[in-house]
Amino acid sequence: MSERILFDEARDARIGLPEAVFSEGKDPESLKELLLRFRRGCGHPILFTRLSIKALEALPEDVREGYSYDPISRTAYGEKLPERGEGYGSVAIVTAGTSDAFVSHEAGRTLEYLGVRHEYFEDCGVAGLWRLEKRLPEINRHSVVIVCAGLDAAIASVLGGLTGRPLIAVPTSVGYGAASGGETALHSMLCSCAPGVAVMNIDNGYGAACAAVRILNSRA
Amino acid sequence: MSERILFDEARDARIGLPEAVFSEGKDPESLKELLLRFRRGCGHPILFTRLSIKALEALPEDVREGYSYDPISRTAYGEKLPERGEGYGSVAIVTAGTSDAFVSHEAGRTLEYLGVRHEYFEDCGVAGLWRLEKRLPEINRHSVVIVCAGLDAAIASVLGGLTGRPLIAVPTSVGYGAASGGETALHSMLCSCAPGVAVMNIDNGYGAACAAVRILNSRA
Amino acid sequence: MSERILFDEARDARIGLPEAVFSEGKDPESLKELLLRFRRGCGHPILFTRLSIKALEALPEDVREGYSYDPISRTAYGEKLPERGEGYGSVAIVTAGTSDAFVSHEAGRTLEYLGVRHEYFEDCGVAGLWRLEKRLPEINRHSVVIVCAGLDAAIASVLGGLTGRPLIAVPTSVGYGAASGGETALHSMLCSCAPGVAVMNIDNGYGAACAAVRILNSRA
Amino acid sequence: MSERILFDEARDARIGLPEAVFSEGKDPESLKELLLRFRRGCGHPILFTRLSIKALEALPEDVREGYSYDPISRTAYGEKLPERGEGYGSVAIVTAGTSDAFVSHEAGRTLEYLGVRHEYFEDCGVAGLWRLEKRLPEINRHSVVIVCAGLDAAIASVLGGLTGRPLIAVPTSVGYGAASGGETALHSMLCSCAPGVAVMNIDNGYGAACAAVRILNSRA
Amino acid sequence: MSERILFDEARDARIGLPEAVFSEGKDPESLKELLLRFRRGCGHPILFTRLSIKALEALPEDVREGYSYDPISRTAYGEKLPERGEGYGSVAIVTAGTSDAFVSHEAGRTLEYLGVRHEYFEDCGVAGLWRLEKRLPEINRHSVVIVCAGLDAAIASVLGGLTGRPLIAVPTSVGYGAASGGETALHSMLCSCAPGVAVMNIDNGYGAACAAVRILNSRA
Amino acid sequence: MSERILFDEARDARIGLPEAVFSEGKDPESLKELLLRFRRGCGHPILFTRLSIKALEALPEDVREGYSYDPISRTAYGEKLPERGEGYGSVAIVTAGTSDAFVSHEAGRTLEYLGVRHEYFEDCGVAGLWRLEKRLPEINRHSVVIVCAGLDAAIASVLGGLTGRPLIAVPTSVGYGAASGGETALHSMLCSCAPGVAVMNIDNGYGAACAAVRILNSRA
Amino acid sequence: MSERILFDEARDARIGLPEAVFSEGKDPESLKELLLRFRRGCGHPILFTRLSIKALEALPEDVREGYSYDPISRTAYGEKLPERGEGYGSVAIVTAGTSDAFVSHEAGRTLEYLGVRHEYFEDCGVAGLWRLEKRLPEINRHSVVIVCAGLDAAIASVLGGLTGRPLIAVPTSVGYGAASGGETALHSMLCSCAPGVAVMNIDNGYGAACAAVRILNSRA
Amino acid sequence: MSERILFDEARDARIGLPEAVFSEGKDPESLKELLLRFRRGCGHPILFTRLSIKALEALPEDVREGYSYDPISRTAYGEKLPERGEGYGSVAIVTAGTSDAFVSHEAGRTLEYLGVRHEYFEDCGVAGLWRLEKRLPEINRHSVVIVCAGLDAAIASVLGGLTGRPLIAVPTSVGYGAASGGETALHSMLCSCAPGVAVMNIDNGYGAACAAVRILNSRA
Repeated sequence: MSERILFDEARDARIGLPEAVFSEGKDPESLKELLLRFRRGCGHPILFTRLSIKALEALPEDVREGYSYDPISRTAYGEKLPERGEGYGSVAIVTAGTSDAFVSHEAGRTLEYLGVRHEYFEDCGVAGLWRLEKRLPEINRHSVVIVCAGLDAAIASVLGGLTGRPLIAVPTSVGYGAASGGETALHSMLCSCAPGVAVMNIDNGYGAACAAVRILNSRA
Repeated sequence: MSERILFDEARDARIGLPEAVFSEGKDPESLKELLLRFRRGCGHPILFTRLSIKALEALPEDVREGYSYDPISRTAYGEKLPERGEGYGSVAIVTAGTSDAFVSHEAGRTLEYLGVRHEYFEDCGVAGLWRLEKRLPEINRHSVVIVCAGLDAAIASVLGGLTGRPLIAVPTSVGYGAASGGETALHSMLCSCAPGVAVMNIDNGYGAACAAVRILNSRA
Repeated sequence: MSERILFDEARDARIGLPEAVFSEGKDPESLKELLLRFRRGCGHPILFTRLSIKALEALPEDVREGYSYDPISRTAYGEKLPERGEGYGSVAIVTAGTSDAFVSHEAGRTLEYLGVRHEYFEDCGVAGLWRLEKRLPEINRHSVVIVCAGLDAAIASVLGGLTGRPLIAVPTSVGYGAASGGETALHSMLCSCAPGVAVMNIDNGYGAACAAVRILNSRA
Repeated sequence: MSERILFDEARDARIGLPEAVFSEGKDPESLKELLLRFRRGCGHPILFTRLSIKALEALPEDVREGYSYDPISRTAYGEKLPERGEGYGSVAIVTAGTSDAFVSHEAGRTLEYLGVRHEYFEDCGVAGLWRLEKRLPEINRHSVVIVCAGLDAAIASVLGGLTGRPLIAVPTSVGYGAASGGETALHSMLCSCAPGVAVMNIDNGYGAACAAVRILNSRA
Repeated sequence: MSERILFDEARDARIGLPEAVFSEGKDPESLKELLLRFRRGCGHPILFTRLSIKALEALPEDVREGYSYDPISRTAYGEKLPERGEGYGSVAIVTAGTSDAFVSHEAGRTLEYLGVRHEYFEDCGVAGLWRLEKRLPEINRHSVVIVCAGLDAAIASVLGGLTGRPLIAVPTSVGYGAASGGETALHSMLCSCAPGVAVMNIDNGYGAACAAVRILNSRA
Repeated sequence: MSERILFDEARDARIGLPEAVFSEGKDPESLKELLLRFRRGCGHPILFTRLSIKALEALPEDVREGYSYDPISRTAYGEKLPERGEGYGSVAIVTAGTSDAFVSHEAGRTLEYLGVRHEYFEDCGVAGLWRLEKRLPEINRHSVVIVCAGLDAAIASVLGGLTGRPLIAVPTSVGYGAASGGETALHSMLCSCAPGVAVMNIDNGYGAACAAVRILNSRA
Repeated sequence: MSERILFDEARDARIGLPEAVFSEGKDPESLKELLLRFRRGCGHPILFTRLSIKALEALPEDVREGYSYDPISRTAYGEKLPERGEGYGSVAIVTAGTSDAFVSHEAGRTLEYLGVRHEYFEDCGVAGLWRLEKRLPEINRHSVVIVCAGLDAAIASVLGGLTGRPLIAVPTSVGYGAASGGETALHSMLCSCAPGVAVMNIDNGYGAACAAVRILNSRA
Repeated sequence: MSERILFDEARDARIGLPEAVFSEGKDPESLKELLLRFRRGCGHPILFTRLSIKALEALPEDVREGYSYDPISRTAYGEKLPERGEGYGSVAIVTAGTSDAFVSHEAGRTLEYLGVRHEYFEDCGVAGLWRLEKRLPEINRHSVVIVCAGLDAAIASVLGGLTGRPLIAVPTSVGYGAASGGETALHSMLCSCAPGVAVMNIDNGYGAACAAVRILNSRA
């Protein structure tokens, strides 16, 4: 291949996760080259993350062809990996509020692209505790739990004290003032009073999905 | 009076709260002057806060005479204000863990000195949710609730969603790393997803008691 | 009901404050669903906060119908709660300068929606101390005081030393440079040298109103 | 039982991890009560973390009896949980340098107490890349990998690109100046360019072990 | 002269202020050399700042001879500059509380050493506004005003709105939690709502005195 | 007068500096009311600061009439104060680079409005030391020196070591990355190794002019 | 010359590097004056950095004539310095990912303008370690190495452990959340576990090129 | 060899710099093992950095034998590398004040251990500019310049504008308040207005020496 951009194509074989394209800040020329290289039918499934609808629409229409694009999660892919079998396990994606959807859906879309079953549990914020308690049995039916929350991210500790599942916490940048663009949620999750809560970068739904897949792969 | 230090003695009449002495960083000479001035029998009740046992023991023994001192809250007073009557109301002091006692007891001792009834509810951390839920009815029997917590301070949101009482949240400096000396608990409480949680400075049990008394006074 | 978004409808009964909708960052589809659900006549009063005029005008016109919208506070509601009686008490809302209006009016509009009487006291910044001192008697006629200020928020300490009312301080993001988007006002209020000043998140006029209502409810 | 401190004894049954005692900042009286309650033979295995040798030695000698104490990890327990069987899985604990031992050994001691097999891989810092590459096959023989590093924590990304195992990264407070007490390692790990690296609080070896056990439990 | 340390002896002639010795962090050998070089009778008045009593007492007794040392301000000098005449002007040093004395006295001792008249106005914190208002006429009798305060430093704005004198504000590290070692007072003073308040580094009483002397010199 | 906004009109008499209008963040209605109230001929000179050309042009044209507006400094006034006499003194305004002009000109325009003579010394950055050294004699001909600089603000220390004039340092938000929007310049100036450098908020040219005028007034 | 802006034209002779124009934040009038002064044929080669295409296109077209402009690096020059000879040495510019191009190309364009040979090595991020190891021999053929990376900047330590060349590390603002606009990469590079890695400001490709030229000049 | 600690012994051959031992935070057992392994006569020269006199004296006396220890720089070595020849080049180490000696001497001792000639230029702080200007010709006689400074680190920019030598800047933690433990000096150096100043971590004299040796090696 003669492409300008050096891709880590062996990553999937090495660690069980294919390389993805972080689209933010890429110049249009590089984006175009990558989208053309990995469109449906190329035989090499690739996920584009943080691809804003504005950046996408700035490209020639034919470049976008053959892509499944989701504006809430800002993700695109030309091809998906094959669906995992029944025994592989599945992921519960819990959110505190509807404003966290742009993160939880990045996790969900990444799992969809990787062929992993998952289910959303939205609006479980602990100011109305019954919402989480009511769904707990369903959440526990999944093998791994991802929880996305902004503000004080109190749900991470509450959920961590209620479930024994591997718990991956994703702080979101939802909130203002002392929420500090997600830093409060991040630090709050890192200091969770529940044991064994593992934390991702702010808004990193993609990474949470990858961490979940590392766990599911290790069970195979 | 010819004392060197200019005291705001009219504060009680003006705002219903007497001036207190913040002892930290005071030089021994000033501390001694103040302790001698306000000992039992002086007719002017004063609370000393943040008075470490080390600073106290560095003073001549007779200076300490006539004082009630509590090492956990690091508070001292020579005289207390008269006890408030039944109808005045009372305060629940809730803590996440035993490590928060140095703060919750500063609140409790301040209330004791001000003649206000109060009750402690300790070890209510939300990683074991049943501990808080079980005590909720008792907590709600009080007129005002103070909640002290470090780490992620998740208890503030959970409690804020369960009680309609005025809720005064005090972040504590309990924790390490990303707890940042109480800043995470502080920001977490400021960003509470429960409505109307009012926040004090880190470790400021004294201030929480004063805020509670402002509320109780306004009911009189 | 079959709505997609899980609402905490029992919150009012539980804590005396109905759930509100934090509109910032919500995708247009969710906003639309919520606005249609809670418009005038729905029998369930809901407050929308942080609803920018831009986000509102991006929605179809019929969605906005039946709403009272205020652009300064960026709040909307379809129905209000019934007005509280005389004995319920009232709230003074004090600001340092006209630039703080977007916060003080969020507090005022929330109180209006909740049926609570309130009065504004604007331009009381302490660089011209007479402005605050002159209005003090009127301020003290109210049961609870909310004070909104940016920059150094010095007014919180001055007012805290002059009034014995419960004092809820709201830092605003007014200022530049070392004002750090309201963090200086926030920290300043938390460190107030007046006792018992309780603090809300930066720009959180809504929360201040809720804290005031918790206090007023506890007097009933 | 009539103990003063309310313990979450049902935690093990609920989430598969028993409650632990965070000893830092506890007053001697509480520590003593807890150590006496959970000593060998009590029938209830409990781990004490962050128990400094100084705090321990300040207690009466008989209180310390019946405890296994390790000064590097600052952990103590009276009884251990039973050893897990062969099929349960095991944990690799990788460190960048010998200075990180106080954290990696907290993880190791927690696993030992929980009955989980584990192996240390020390001095794998990437400034001498061969040290990590040489041990990679052995590391991959374990089911879960914990990596502890201070400074720039570059090893997390390198290891994350070489292994497909679930990877739990623990930043340590090793370093000075711009290392900022572990914050740089923390942020570095959160921003890892390798996908799916999950992060714990600074120096939180205990939490990393718990996260690993959540994963191993989910495989059972 | 053959001394090891290169002194800026011409500074006085150049800018009207002699070089001073910042003693903190100096190794004992350097301190000793400097103290011996500038003792009484050397004909070259020098001020030592931040010279802790511990560092001083670690030196041989004869090194300390011929020095005026003040433990509150941690300053020492062997010789003073000649007293300035009547027309030169004088400085008011205002503090919020007695805990600020270590800073205000550094300013006062520097002025004393430089031969400049000054007067202390202590305990003027604005939580008791009458204390400042009562002393205002006396404060205004001086040519320059230095104000030292920690916590929220609200006094800077209040004083700035009451006096037209050049106003030099010194934040102090008094306080805890959100006081952040003086940063809140610093930022608060920088954001003062009173116009023309000039600010020094945290605890820098020495610098405030120098700034005052620059002003007084410019009047000569 | 019946205006809605409460102006501190007595400020000039009290402290020698009239109240100014900080225009940023004011809603158009308030701006309009203020501009109409203080236009040329109103007999009450007022300075508008931080009035962006965009905010100004959004107002009806007749509102802007009778104003002198300068787009670099973003200042406007309808009337100026009378020019000060020869003996009053004057101000040197030194900048490190042309990018600092928006701050230095805010200082200059404020002085112009207050009737105070001043002179600009631009492009004196110390990477080319000769530029500052060459202009030093001219700078020293003024009574007070204002220095504006971004980046590392090294010029403040160099100038502070070369001139004995009262020195008011204004950090600017010029720079990127570690310049942190002016915080580095701010902290750098606060830590100047030259004695007696007094510091203003980031970009606060207006405040620097006021501080200079306090000094000049005190000489009268 | 009568230009308004005082240029440090002797800089090249003094330190071997001509003064450059930092274009960001310059008002259009100043930019225009400078571009006209230094266009091709003026006999004085000057580099404009951080000149956005938007700022450039806002100027009259004839002002831009005679300039080589590159939109990725945002640099422009009218004339270049003469090419250095063979023995002068050359620079390797290594980047972690394509998103870092705006920084690496600023370094490259600066070297091009200064007449220094250089080669790009892109997409060497250590999550796929083989990409860096494969190019190491070629990188080592150059005299100095510049490495640009955002996120955790792990490549700096890995490369620092593999090459003995002078290594200049430039953190980039690539990333989100805990990447903090490049601060994590900056601190990570400063704490590199490889010895002797020298660091530039975030995104400062220009400075890295200058540091490289200082080294190459010192070899001449 | 059977040592417990895995040493990167090939580092010297790989990058021209031997591995060093960062002693801070190492437990006594590890320190002892390393000191015994690398004492004089072992044939493998190793430098111990950040080895406090307290840590050293806590070890058995015979462990310390055969070591050259320097308390100011806190460095120790058993054997040195051979002295470099005349043509290799040398290093100037410039400091702002005597308080910076603990850093500059760490650089100097590292160079001494590596066999590289160097010269100290102390007390060159720019508040007395003549001190630096006077020594400039001597400084320029060296091939590389290291500059160590705390506070505002203004000397880095001044020196960077005067010398064309490769310039390695080391911020020191000297100062208080806004000096923030060296962060202000660090950020100040990163934002230097002189081009091509390369920066090391706070107090990292060891790293500066290594960076200098990378440069000198590249000239060989």
